Amino acid sequence: MHFTSEQRLDDGVLERAFTLDRGPGIPGILWTPASATASAPAPVILLGHPGGLRAMYPRLVGRARHAAANGFATATIESPGSGDRPRSGDAEQARADLRRAVLAGEPVDDEIVDRLVLPLVAKAVPEWQTALDAVLALPDIGGPVGYSGGVIAVGVRLALVEPRIVAAGLFAGSYVPRATFDEARQVTIPLHVLLQWDDEGNDRQLALDLFDAFGSQEKTLQANMGGHTGVPPFAGEDAARFFARHLT
Amino acid sequence: MHFTSEQRLDDGVLERAFTLDRGPGIPGILWTPASATASAPAPVILLGHPGGLRAMYPRLVGRARHAAANGFATATIESPGSGDRPRSGDAEQARADLRRAVLAGEPVDDEIVDRLVLPLVAKAVPEWQTALDAVLALPDIGGPVGYSGGVIAVGVRLALVEPRIVAAGLFAGSYVPRATFDEARQVTIPLHVLLQWDDEGNDRQLALDLFDAFGSQEKTLQANMGGHTGVPPFAGEDAARFFARHLT
Repeated sequence: MHFTSEQRLDDGVLERAFTLDRGPGIPGILWTPASATASAPAPVILLGHPGGLRAMYPRLVGRARHAAANGFATATIESPGSGDRPRSGDAEQARADLRRAVLAGEPVDDEIVDRLVLPLVAKAVPEWQTALDAVLALPDIGGPVGYSGGVIAVGVRLALVEPRIVAAGLFAGSYVPRATFDEARQVTIPLHVLLQWDDEGNDRQLALDLFDAFGSQEKTLQANMGGHTGVPPFAGEDAARFFARHLT
Repeated sequence: MHFTSEQRLDDGVLERAFTLDRGPGIPGILWTPASATASAPAPVILLGHPGGLRAMYPRLVGRARHAAANGFATATIESPGSGDRPRSGDAEQARADLRRAVLAGEPVDDEIVDRLVLPLVAKAVPEWQTALDAVLALPDIGGPVGYSGGVIAVGVRLALVEPRIVAAGLFAGSYVPRATFDEARQVTIPLHVLLQWDDEGNDRQLALDLFDAFGSQEKTLQANMGGHTGVPPFAGEDAARFFARHLT
């Protein structure tokens, strides 16, 4: 990992862009609260997102500032096939098939979802783990680790295979592969699942079924109104308290 | 309303038992935080429950102390046909029919639910309103007013017909009359609905359908694990913050 730029935001949060030294390089951003030092390292939350760091930046930095106000560092990396990262022909084809089905008003075939999401999960999860190795090697960052956001299939796999992640706040979205349900049953870490009840692009029943499938003894579903991007401020605060309970 | 006993709890909360001067008298309890005075009257939350003040007391006083710590007074009254209040032959028959169906593993007929719950709602709601008149006439109690808990059909009716209630925290339970769904569609006040996901005595799908029916623009469903009586402490805190947002 090497840092490519650094700026101090007005609330004292240190924002550092980095490139992860894996293959052709994966861009990412690390935010640390002013309070984080080598003698008081900050716990870190990995910020999941649907891909496209540049377009997602305003929402990501908002989540990062909020987490920093609670004493948490946050880190995110670009998704495989998003931003400036090389496209995969198979993923582009699956995305085109998905778009065609949605525009035609047809149900989206499980097979299309598998072709779109499973390779993404398989690629993204080890990249998140490499990012975690690099971030935890920094003196001002410590454990434990949380994962927050989508893509939910990535979050589920990470919750299952990465023992350093002790709590996950997941954003319920559609297009969940059948295999993710099997993995969800084996997840045991505390979960806080956000569902936008009136999100028209979302399959609500699927989100409820996935929540039901999770094996965790502590799992909370919080459903709110406001559409896909309209998570109310108090829901962000409740999620922050979830991480405060489990990461501090 | 006249007070029948008074004690100061160890956290400074004043607990006053009262009888509501309506018909043969309805027993109730009022809790006020030490901070409540005539010059700084406390907002009040009505504490709903399934009936049986004596058996419910430990849970009610816990909720009252928690609310008082957030500056809220709380008040509750005995349900029609519960505790020392006269039984209704029709309600007892409906309860027996319900018990028989449940023990036989049969689905509970809508008609039984209507016979059991609708007369309860019709009786209880004006009693809550009388209690509210009396409580709000006290110098140390002010508006606005919240309703918290079950019976959910009573909470829905109150949310619809009592304009002094500006926010409701409802506990999702089974045996909801069909008419309650029609009323739910007309409710517009902010709602915070708690659902115990693994409550075996609860019809989860019915609870989700009722949440979906509510007409309120701000409505939150929070589902947790822990069984019927195992609402986790953090869920109580989230509910308290809901009332703090709307009653202060």
